[in-house]
Amino acid sequence: MDIFLIGATQVTQTNDLPGTVPAEGFLWIDATHEEVTADPEGWRDLIACATGTHIYDPHLKDAVNPLHPSYFDSTQDYGMVVFRKLSLHGTDYSDSAAIPTGDEPLSPTPNGSKRAVPAALSNLTTQPITFFILENALVTVHEHQSRTINATRNRLLDYASKGNKALHNNRLPASPEDLMLRLLNAMVDKYLELRQPLTNQLDRWQRALLDPGRPFKDWLTLLDARIELRKLESLCEEQHDAIQELRDYFVDMDDDGDGATISRTRDLLLVRVNDIMEHINRVLNHARRLESSIESAVQIHFSAVAHRTNEVMRTLTVITALFMPLTLITGIFGMNFAVMPLLQNKTGFWLTMLSMVLIVVGMLAFFRRRRYLETPPSERR
Amino acid sequence: MDIFLIGATQVTQTNDLPGTVPAEGFLWIDATHEEVTADPEGWRDLIACATGTHIYDPHLKDAVNPLHPSYFDSTQDYGMVVFRKLSLHGTDYSDSAAIPTGDEPLSPTPNGSKRAVPAALSNLTTQPITFFILENALVTVHEHQSRTINATRNRLLDYASKGNKALHNNRLPASPEDLMLRLLNAMVDKYLELRQPLTNQLDRWQRALLDPGRPFKDWLTLLDARIELRKLESLCEEQHDAIQELRDYFVDMDDDGDGATISRTRDLLLVRVNDIMEHINRVLNHARRLESSIESAVQIHFSAVAHRTNEVMRTLTVITALFMPLTLITGIFGMNFAVMPLLQNKTGFWLTMLSMVLIVVGMLAFFRRRRYLETPPSERR
Amino acid sequence: MDIFLIGATQVTQTNDLPGTVPAEGFLWIDATHEEVTADPEGWRDLIACATGTHIYDPHLKDAVNPLHPSYFDSTQDYGMVVFRKLSLHGTDYSDSAAIPTGDEPLSPTPNGSKRAVPAALSNLTTQPITFFILENALVTVHEHQSRTINATRNRLLDYASKGNKALHNNRLPASPEDLMLRLLNAMVDKYLELRQPLTNQLDRWQRALLDPGRPFKDWLTLLDARIELRKLESLCEEQHDAIQELRDYFVDMDDDGDGATISRTRDLLLVRVNDIMEHINRVLNHARRLESSIESAVQIHFSAVAHRTNEVMRTLTVITALFMPLTLITGIFGMNFAVMPLLQNKTGFWLTMLSMVLIVVGMLAFFRRRRYLETPPSERR
Amino acid sequence: MDIFLIGATQVTQTNDLPGTVPAEGFLWIDATHEEVTADPEGWRDLIACATGTHIYDPHLKDAVNPLHPSYFDSTQDYGMVVFRKLSLHGTDYSDSAAIPTGDEPLSPTPNGSKRAVPAALSNLTTQPITFFILENALVTVHEHQSRTINATRNRLLDYASKGNKALHNNRLPASPEDLMLRLLNAMVDKYLELRQPLTNQLDRWQRALLDPGRPFKDWLTLLDARIELRKLESLCEEQHDAIQELRDYFVDMDDDGDGATISRTRDLLLVRVNDIMEHINRVLNHARRLESSIESAVQIHFSAVAHRTNEVMRTLTVITALFMPLTLITGIFGMNFAVMPLLQNKTGFWLTMLSMVLIVVGMLAFFRRRRYLETPPSERR
Amino acid sequence: MDIFLIGATQVTQTNDLPGTVPAEGFLWIDATHEEVTADPEGWRDLIACATGTHIYDPHLKDAVNPLHPSYFDSTQDYGMVVFRKLSLHGTDYSDSAAIPTGDEPLSPTPNGSKRAVPAALSNLTTQPITFFILENALVTVHEHQSRTINATRNRLLDYASKGNKALHNNRLPASPEDLMLRLLNAMVDKYLELRQPLTNQLDRWQRALLDPGRPFKDWLTLLDARIELRKLESLCEEQHDAIQELRDYFVDMDDDGDGATISRTRDLLLVRVNDIMEHINRVLNHARRLESSIESAVQIHFSAVAHRTNEVMRTLTVITALFMPLTLITGIFGMNFAVMPLLQNKTGFWLTMLSMVLIVVGMLAFFRRRRYLETPPSERR
Ligand SMILES: [Mg+2]
Ligand SMILES: [Mg+2]
Ligand SMILES: [Mg+2]
Ligand SMILES: [Mg+2]
Ligand SMILES: [Mg+2]
Ligand SMILES: [Mg+2]
Ligand SMILES: [Mg+2]
Ligand SMILES: [Mg+2]
Ligand SMILES: [Mg+2]
Ligand SMILES: [Mg+2]
Ligand SMILES: [Mg+2]
Ligand SMILES: [Mg+2]
Ligand SMILES: [Mg+2]
Ligand SMILES: [Mg+2]
Ligand SMILES: [Mg+2]
Ligand SMILES: [Mg+2]
Ligand SMILES: [Mg+2]
Ligand SMILES: [Mg+2]
Ligand SMILES: [Mg+2]
Ligand SMILES: [Mg+2]
Ligand SMILES: [Mg+2]
Ligand SMILES: [Mg+2]
Ligand SMILES: [Mg+2]
Ligand SMILES: [Mg+2]
Ligand SMILES: [Mg+2]
Ligand SMILES: [Mg+2]
Ligand SMILES: [Mg+2]
Ligand SMILES: [Mg+2]
Ligand SMILES: [Mg+2]
Ligand SMILES: [Mg+2]
Ligand SMILES: [Mg+2]
Repeated sequence: MDIFLIGATQVTQTNDLPGTVPAEGFLWIDATHEEVTADPEGWRDLIACATGTHIYDPHLKDAVNPLHPSYFDSTQDYGMVVFRKLSLHGTDYSDSAAIPTGDEPLSPTPNGSKRAVPAALSNLTTQPITFFILENALVTVHEHQSRTINATRNRLLDYASKGNKALHNNRLPASPEDLMLRLLNAMVDKYLELRQPLTNQLDRWQRALLDPGRPFKDWLTLLDARIELRKLESLCEEQHDAIQELRDYFVDMDDDGDGATISRTRDLLLVRVNDIMEHINRVLNHARRLESSIESAVQIHFSAVAHRTNEVMRTLTVITALFMPLTLITGIFGMNFAVMPLLQNKTGFWLTMLSMVLIVVGMLAFFRRRRYLETPPSERR
Repeated sequence: MDIFLIGATQVTQTNDLPGTVPAEGFLWIDATHEEVTADPEGWRDLIACATGTHIYDPHLKDAVNPLHPSYFDSTQDYGMVVFRKLSLHGTDYSDSAAIPTGDEPLSPTPNGSKRAVPAALSNLTTQPITFFILENALVTVHEHQSRTINATRNRLLDYASKGNKALHNNRLPASPEDLMLRLLNAMVDKYLELRQPLTNQLDRWQRALLDPGRPFKDWLTLLDARIELRKLESLCEEQHDAIQELRDYFVDMDDDGDGATISRTRDLLLVRVNDIMEHINRVLNHARRLESSIESAVQIHFSAVAHRTNEVMRTLTVITALFMPLTLITGIFGMNFAVMPLLQNKTGFWLTMLSMVLIVVGMLAFFRRRRYLETPPSERR
Repeated sequence: MDIFLIGATQVTQTNDLPGTVPAEGFLWIDATHEEVTADPEGWRDLIACATGTHIYDPHLKDAVNPLHPSYFDSTQDYGMVVFRKLSLHGTDYSDSAAIPTGDEPLSPTPNGSKRAVPAALSNLTTQPITFFILENALVTVHEHQSRTINATRNRLLDYASKGNKALHNNRLPASPEDLMLRLLNAMVDKYLELRQPLTNQLDRWQRALLDPGRPFKDWLTLLDARIELRKLESLCEEQHDAIQELRDYFVDMDDDGDGATISRTRDLLLVRVNDIMEHINRVLNHARRLESSIESAVQIHFSAVAHRTNEVMRTLTVITALFMPLTLITGIFGMNFAVMPLLQNKTGFWLTMLSMVLIVVGMLAFFRRRRYLETPPSERR
Repeated sequence: MDIFLIGATQVTQTNDLPGTVPAEGFLWIDATHEEVTADPEGWRDLIACATGTHIYDPHLKDAVNPLHPSYFDSTQDYGMVVFRKLSLHGTDYSDSAAIPTGDEPLSPTPNGSKRAVPAALSNLTTQPITFFILENALVTVHEHQSRTINATRNRLLDYASKGNKALHNNRLPASPEDLMLRLLNAMVDKYLELRQPLTNQLDRWQRALLDPGRPFKDWLTLLDARIELRKLESLCEEQHDAIQELRDYFVDMDDDGDGATISRTRDLLLVRVNDIMEHINRVLNHARRLESSIESAVQIHFSAVAHRTNEVMRTLTVITALFMPLTLITGIFGMNFAVMPLLQNKTGFWLTMLSMVLIVVGMLAFFRRRRYLETPPSERR
Repeated sequence: MDIFLIGATQVTQTNDLPGTVPAEGFLWIDATHEEVTADPEGWRDLIACATGTHIYDPHLKDAVNPLHPSYFDSTQDYGMVVFRKLSLHGTDYSDSAAIPTGDEPLSPTPNGSKRAVPAALSNLTTQPITFFILENALVTVHEHQSRTINATRNRLLDYASKGNKALHNNRLPASPEDLMLRLLNAMVDKYLELRQPLTNQLDRWQRALLDPGRPFKDWLTLLDARIELRKLESLCEEQHDAIQELRDYFVDMDDDGDGATISRTRDLLLVRVNDIMEHINRVLNHARRLESSIESAVQIHFSAVAHRTNEVMRTLTVITALFMPLTLITGIFGMNFAVMPLLQNKTGFWLTMLSMVLIVVGMLAFFRRRRYLETPPSERR
């Protein structure tokens, strides 16, 4: 458990939670699931001592549920945000080198039972981070190491050790809300970089689906990609809903200080919340467009295949119609009747051959008139 | 009919409804459909004596309707919740051993006219439980034995017999609303476990649909699964709507006591209602995702089949186009004309065979150029 | 025109509308389209004399429009409900014997140009009933005989002739709103019984669509059923919208009497309106589920047919590929060249036959390896 | 430009706009696009003199835009309605003889590049009429001659020349709003008659699409019909939106007179606006149902065609499978080997023929068992 | 950076931002991305000095983000609009000669990896313009040269140099809001001209898709067009959302001056905003209709192809069924049995030929009766 007391100009890290509510500044209490689940009641009591706020039972359970979706709830004493963020194989997206480019080959699947999904999509594992926004503290609970949280903690530690000369352009967060929005902002900003590799990947698929010269075989992978895209949409929608309720919570917050300052502070909070929502929306809209592009591509692929099947059928019909009459003629003159016309005629064979050529020419003309043969060979597949 | 008088620190079970409204604590009156339908008017009068509240006619009818969907309605005197819950073949989902794993074979259908549906879905039978939230009483009406209700009743009986030393961490419910939310919470929590077996089942289907080597034959079962999934969605939507209206009812409730305590109590009610709605939402979203996955799988299966039919057609066309000219040639030299070229030539046969080989080679080259033959044999099905 | 004056304890039927507003109780004025259209202005003036309320022009026109959809409108003086109800071939659904079971054969269509639609759906003819809710009167206007209206009128007549000893459990309606809701309730309750025959009918279709052994031919009927189902949905939606606006009208009504009594009366009205809306909603949701089931069945039928076509194509390809080479060989040895190998060989014929058997065995092995033949015969259709 | 001064009991037509606001009554100023576009600023100034109201620039532009969709906007001084109405080849629908019956043959297309669309749909040309609702005037601007406007003007002229004895049941419009609603009402009422020919037309298509004995060829026309239907829907939606905003404008209008009279007047306005919206809604719902019927018909047609293709394929497969073995047998006994069994046998030929018959019988039995042949001939297309 | 001080009657261009807030009139500060990104903090401070308003961090970042979607946000001090406008290959649409007519051939794609998209759609590149609406200044930030901005700037420069005699009918903008709406209006008006070429292009595609005589091959282009159309819809939706929020901002603005004038000014702003929204809506609705037309065309094309494939199959089946029995007969009489009937008969050959003719006639009659041959040749493709 990392505990920071953040004042107007300085940061103090403490090992234990203070027994009373601090007189000024606010606390940041960062805990992992293991630390909380070890003794939930005890942990809650510690929080209650240090902040004067009691966390309700259902919220305590939600905070340690690794499968919880994004969510917002509020009571008279505090607000709770569960933010389900993307993480790359259990690590943050903060390490930009880890972001797939979409041009690499399909990822070798670590899990044998999982089918090969394109890199940009298969990495969409998620984990929840829970924020409790108290009067004078921010409590965060998360499962694994989170790079965003680590980066923020390290910056605060730097500040604590070096004083404010270390910070050139970053002011200290002014309130628990401010700190939370900085963390959320850092998490969400990493998403926007997802869009390019996703687009690249899906563009390659569209070309593959519609390339008449290459049969498409990745049906299972295509299905998985659609399902993953829909999961991404669902994730963004839930994030958006939660942040929108958080925004309403900020709008309704009590003003218990000097009017002008408070309203300026709230303005800044709202600008930041709007910015986060706009970023989530951008990823959401991107995912929706990609999904509808895949759907269009499958539908158009389907039309194209039906078209080509029609052309193959016409080819088959023409071949059959050309050769069957000729074969019948040879069959007729191959019969062993004692008395047959033409057989003894010296030009009988050539007459027959000529009639066969005439039949072929006539049929080709007929088919051309009925447009069975219109397509130039290079296209008639 | 089970009747409990629940006070702040003790629980009393009584056999008959009291003739007057209890001075303190509140009543829990648990009745079955049979008990109510035996004499609805009489039962209503009993309730009116014990609680001072008269239940309206339409509500009385709804309470014993075994087909009623989830529903909320309120009057000035009371609120009514009909909650249609899942039950496993007439029993609760509380017995976790009864939850299907999705890996078991398709359930042998007890009813001959019912088609084989996967275990995880065929168990979706439902039954309504009606709650009347009165000023000082909770009235529950249900059809069969309900495990959730039984478990709660047994816990209360334990409490009544042993006193509060038996209860380590479970406080007594503080109000009719509190008791109702505990019951609803226990019912809803069982749903979340449904998700994994559903996912397993449908994942197997997707693989079956898209496996090119195995023809898919379970069309009827697939259709049934879609219909059942949609029923599950519909069930969750109706539950969500009812609970949302219940939430609005709580928000609008009169505060007739001391402000701070009341608002803290209401806060807790709202946190719990929100938690229940979030759980229902999670099942709903899961069902929606599964349904859209099935839909995608059917659509993609369809594209894949059209693709394969196209390839089979091309194979047929190539075979026909290769053999028909050769057969024609043999037919020509099988005719019985007296005068024919080449027949008396000693190398005539071999020349003919050579020309046939050349025709085959030429056609194969032609088809390869027009990409009828591009697919490697292992894929060309 | 039937006119009743309904007081607190007695009912009087009169032949002519009173010239002045009755001092107590309220009027029920029941008219048919013919009675109103004979002299609309005169009829309106009669109503105005007896109730003190003037009906606006557009409402008068709507009241006699036999094609009017369900609708609600209100003015400061009155509310108007047009309720488009289901009727069975011009008669009410009140006669429960007339409700189709869905197990009977397709109805012989009386109208030759109308295609055969299943009984449960073809009966969905509708007619509007218009209610004017005045301060002290209910005015109903309907086209044909309506069983629901007749039944209610007869009950009132019974009451008028026998006094209140005839009525055991049915109180007299307390207000125009109360009377209207009783009529609406009786009309809507008949719908719920529609659901079972609809379900039976559509279940038979789904089986027919997906039965691989029986070709489906009822395309026109299936299309008609979808269109009829959509009409039923549309009907329910419009009813729901109209009743919802009626509900808002009740909620906004003036309280001009003693607070407690009024609010209790209104509570009962709202409970009844909610009940009616819930019943309409149930039919609506049922129709929606059925429609989406049909849609799924058609889609899945389509996939199954494409699947079977693929298998038939493979069968054809295998047959063609097996016999064409053999026929070519027989053609080769049927040519009449003077010099040909093997022909004079004593075992030539048997060698040839052996080679043909080997070719068949080889091709079957090849096709089996490429899975053209995997399906067991009983399934390969 | 037609100018009428409409008082409580009389109508005066004037040639020029008055220079000052009339003391009582209100003005109706009816202008065409040409009259306005000739000198927009001057025309606006004339209006300003006669009514005291200045029209804003964007509204002036919208009023003469022949492509403007239905629209409502309001300022503190006036309201503007653009109503895009249906017109039949540049004439009104008021002439009921011009309404297509849907039973006539496809209209010969006047414009060669335009494809043949059914009469009932191809007539859907539209033109906007703009209404400015001022305090004491109604200004209408329209493009061509409008029958509805002409009819209303003629009635007013009649009134002006003959006095009020000419008017039996039609009172003079009491306000600019009243006059506008009468005009709108007359325009919208013509729509309802569109529904029957549309239904007839589309019913014939559905039968054509699903008639197995007649190949469907009108694909282009079908596509055009869908596009036209969607345009009709879009037109109705925009009209509905505009009228709904007009309704809100009426609801919010200032009451600056005697309360009771005003509210009665407004009641009547709202009743009329609701009636217009309900009529638009009916056309809209009708168009939506027709469109979804077409969509269903295309989808079901598609299923039926796939079904028939499957049956044709089975027929082809059976024919091929029956004749190929027989032809192989004849080929075998047609080979010219010196030593062959059976050839010299006297009953060899008949034994061979018998074996061929046995093969045919066996294969037919096999195919019947595998249900390739189940369909009765009359259906197996 | 272009800076204008716009007073009631005159315009002054200055090179540097004034150090204090101007006493009267308002500023227009026009900057490019490069000018802002060179020193964001410095630029912000300059703005703060000249206008007294501090721009928040997230807004500063958004203003220079070239990928930002349309967006609106507001604080207590200012409003921000990001408007993503269409631009033609980096230039404005203001040059009407540059608008594609849709009749030109497909544009040669400059970027090799980009597929050929029709000219009217491939030009849909977009760029954002950011507006900050301050109390007494309008700040615009854009990426490249924008023709709309240039044109407005040039007009202002003209005004500055020549005085108000240069301006005949264009008054100077009265406020920052007024100036911004003029800019937005000019940008949006260019869109409406996009509709005709789009319609032309897509009409040609529909004809191509449904022309039975010409195989459709532009699947990739068709897919690209759908994706581009959806992008256009998305662009318009985001613009509409942003402008709608701008409208709400205007509605909520403080009135701090004389009531009548203010409300008249606001009226004009709202009329203009409504006009802009209506124009965006028109493009949006047009794009939606085009997209649904393409979707319908693809679906109907698909039905038509399935139909034709069915007819080709029937043709093939008829050919096969006609020739196979005849070939079998010739095969039978081509066998070399020593004893065979008919062979020695003088009319044997002709009897055989006659039976073959009879078989053909019989089969044709049979097929005609089963409607395999109904279609006239000119249609049977
Ligand atoms: Mg959601
Ligand atoms: Mg959610
Ligand atoms: Mg949302
Ligand atoms: Mg939501
Ligand atoms: Mg939500
Ligand atoms: Mg949103
Ligand atoms: Mg619902
Ligand atoms: Mg519901
Ligand atoms: Mg919901
Ligand atoms: Mg809802
Ligand atoms: Mg509901
Ligand atoms: Mg879909
Ligand atoms: Mg509706
Ligand atoms: Mg409606
Ligand atoms: Mg509704
Ligand atoms: Mg409505
Ligand atoms: Mg609606
Ligand atoms: Mg509803
Ligand atoms: Mg669909
Ligand atoms: Mg609309
Ligand atoms: Mg609109
Ligand atoms: Mg609307
Ligand atoms: Mg609108
Ligand atoms: Mg509506
Ligand atoms: Mg669809
Ligand atoms: Mg949007
Ligand atoms: Mg948006
Ligand atoms: Mg919007
Ligand atoms: Mg938005
Ligand atoms: Mg809109
Ligand atoms: Mg769709």
